[in-house]
Amino acid sequence: MNSNIALLTDFGTKDYFVGAMKGAILSINERTNIIDITHEIPPQDVLSASFTLRACYKDFPFKTIFVAVVDPGVGSKRKAILVEIENYCFIAPDNGLLSFVFEEEKIRVLELTNKNFFSADVSRTFHGRDVFACVAAHLSKGINPNEFGAEIKDFIHIKTAKPRKISEQEIEADIIHIDHFGNLITNLKQTDLPENFMLKINGKIINKLQTFFAEAERSELFMILGSAGFLEIAAFQDSAEKLLNVQINQKVLLVT
Amino acid sequence: MNSNIALLTDFGTKDYFVGAMKGAILSINERTNIIDITHEIPPQDVLSASFTLRACYKDFPFKTIFVAVVDPGVGSKRKAILVEIENYCFIAPDNGLLSFVFEEEKIRVLELTNKNFFSADVSRTFHGRDVFACVAAHLSKGINPNEFGAEIKDFIHIKTAKPRKISEQEIEADIIHIDHFGNLITNLKQTDLPENFMLKINGKIINKLQTFFAEAERSELFMILGSAGFLEIAAFQDSAEKLLNVQINQKVLLVT
Amino acid sequence: MNSNIALLTDFGTKDYFVGAMKGAILSINERTNIIDITHEIPPQDVLSASFTLRACYKDFPFKTIFVAVVDPGVGSKRKAILVEIENYCFIAPDNGLLSFVFEEEKIRVLELTNKNFFSADVSRTFHGRDVFACVAAHLSKGINPNEFGAEIKDFIHIKTAKPRKISEQEIEADIIHIDHFGNLITNLKQTDLPENFMLKINGKIINKLQTFFAEAERSELFMILGSAGFLEIAAFQDSAEKLLNVQINQKVLLVT
Repeated sequence: MNSNIALLTDFGTKDYFVGAMKGAILSINERTNIIDITHEIPPQDVLSASFTLRACYKDFPFKTIFVAVVDPGVGSKRKAILVEIENYCFIAPDNGLLSFVFEEEKIRVLELTNKNFFSADVSRTFHGRDVFACVAAHLSKGINPNEFGAEIKDFIHIKTAKPRKISEQEIEADIIHIDHFGNLITNLKQTDLPENFMLKINGKIINKLQTFFAEAERSELFMILGSAGFLEIAAFQDSAEKLLNVQINQKVLLVT
Repeated sequence: MNSNIALLTDFGTKDYFVGAMKGAILSINERTNIIDITHEIPPQDVLSASFTLRACYKDFPFKTIFVAVVDPGVGSKRKAILVEIENYCFIAPDNGLLSFVFEEEKIRVLELTNKNFFSADVSRTFHGRDVFACVAAHLSKGINPNEFGAEIKDFIHIKTAKPRKISEQEIEADIIHIDHFGNLITNLKQTDLPENFMLKINGKIINKLQTFFAEAERSELFMILGSAGFLEIAAFQDSAEKLLNVQINQKVLLVT
Repeated sequence: MNSNIALLTDFGTKDYFVGAMKGAILSINERTNIIDITHEIPPQDVLSASFTLRACYKDFPFKTIFVAVVDPGVGSKRKAILVEIENYCFIAPDNGLLSFVFEEEKIRVLELTNKNFFSADVSRTFHGRDVFACVAAHLSKGINPNEFGAEIKDFIHIKTAKPRKISEQEIEADIIHIDHFGNLITNLKQTDLPENFMLKINGKIINKLQTFFAEAERSELFMILGSAGFLEIAAFQDSAEKLLNVQINQKVLLVT
């Protein structure tokens, strides 16, 4: 068996943290294939991790095991969980990191309690290596998920912000992510969008809806349905983040 | 078959983009070996991507498939191409990204038109995942390149800047890349260099030609023939970029 | 044979350097498994590289080959070495990079002199690709270490800074690393610590010793025994580096 283990953390890439996790995985299952999604989730930003994971997990082969570690509560009594869905498994701290997945899938949640699958000497500060990586490596060898612990129902689900109708003509939505290119990802899905509308953000109006980036003039702001399934605000060959001076979690108004 | 697929993009590493590309590749060919060259090409900088790819492709095993995605025209009518050379294949948008390769190799260029090898549902904004990664994965399984589309001759070749003789004693050249250490890579090759010469840049003269870095005093500026085959301006244990306050594409004068 | 080769450099990830090293390895042994530890060691910072390597090498499977390249003397007469310990091999320039390993292990040091295992055409500026990567790849194929060169005793060992008793009540120690989260790693080990003590740094007193991060209030400073085996100064959901305005190599006073 040669499963894939995909990693997503807020560890950054300058320290030994990611290397140590990979070493721990390969020490248990030398034949697994490790793929980095990202290690640059903003420190402790559980919802950013949740969004990023949701945007790409379906692109991976069935049976891929996702290990997602953004874990401000490491060492405390927060639980560690294994979540099974139809085609994938997720291993993460029980702090809401998988909330976006919970909203899209039929899930089964197990609490990781069987210490036989942890490192022999679990540190208080590095469960990424000593708990999550080790469990993932054992799971990739074909261990039955039920061996890791019992099913629970009281896991943490952070309800992600949804667009809110605030008048006949207005829906208030949120900027939930800003990507590397400075594109602003809203939480508006295609089904939220009326036939004609514009967006208001930071005193600016954006009313051009495009189907691809290269339709615009350089630095022109426009709307586009992005690859994560949400409406985005973008600027051709420029950063909408900088042009509009927008922060994450900022509100945006849809007006018909 | 267990080919290598090497990736080069301007996607950065904080989002789900690279993970999604790798997931898409592994979903088609789980046994391929994926290697990151870099994902930190400056956004939309096609020529920087071209330089970086040219500087390392020959170090890879024969049959490696290079997927290079710096693609401001994604979703528009710009073509997507597969370029065959004697020992390697390249998959990229048709926007000049492979220009440095075109100048060094005997090439055959195919347009990627056969949608059977794309994702079932091609997004308008993420051809890296839905077109380029999928085609590379199919190619790595041994599909004949001719299956992907027909040969074309009207692909885009951006003539890269060459040093220009501007007087009996002077050649004008360009800074075509600045690396992580602040070394300035010019477009002067060994064959462009007279026996004795110096460089002028930003009012400074550099006239010491070294064969390795550690020959100099700390922060001393010197010239060196770099590992990419071009003359570089460097400073021992310091950044020539900062010491000289140089930008990419800036001119440099060779004086005999 | 399908060994692991783990890489640690100061090359950054925006250039072709790491890609070229991986290409060179795979050109010699296409079946090896390459793992990145980090490429973001501060340029030329040999001791930071030494600390990072020491903090994670034991997490890797036995027989892993570590290639560590932080090499200000590239091209000069500095030696290149292969270090064998009981379960691992290290390949590095002979500049003190492996000092932390030397202090913990029974070692055997060989000088890399057999040019048959180097690239056919060794550049003066890129031994990472032309010497270290090539030797590692040959070693991963099962070549006997003695084939690469003879044992030497006059390798460079930089004695790493140790805590110093400066009065009955005081021990002077050092900040030897600052991690991605802004945690400050001292060179104080558990065996250096009296029963009751506090730390003084930059005019601030830190006297709370915790066993995990989430015990504190947000931004509260505390001490914790970290995953690398040293006492750290941390702040819950905040950066101790920023709160205390600390630089690497700064002194810290332990007071009983």
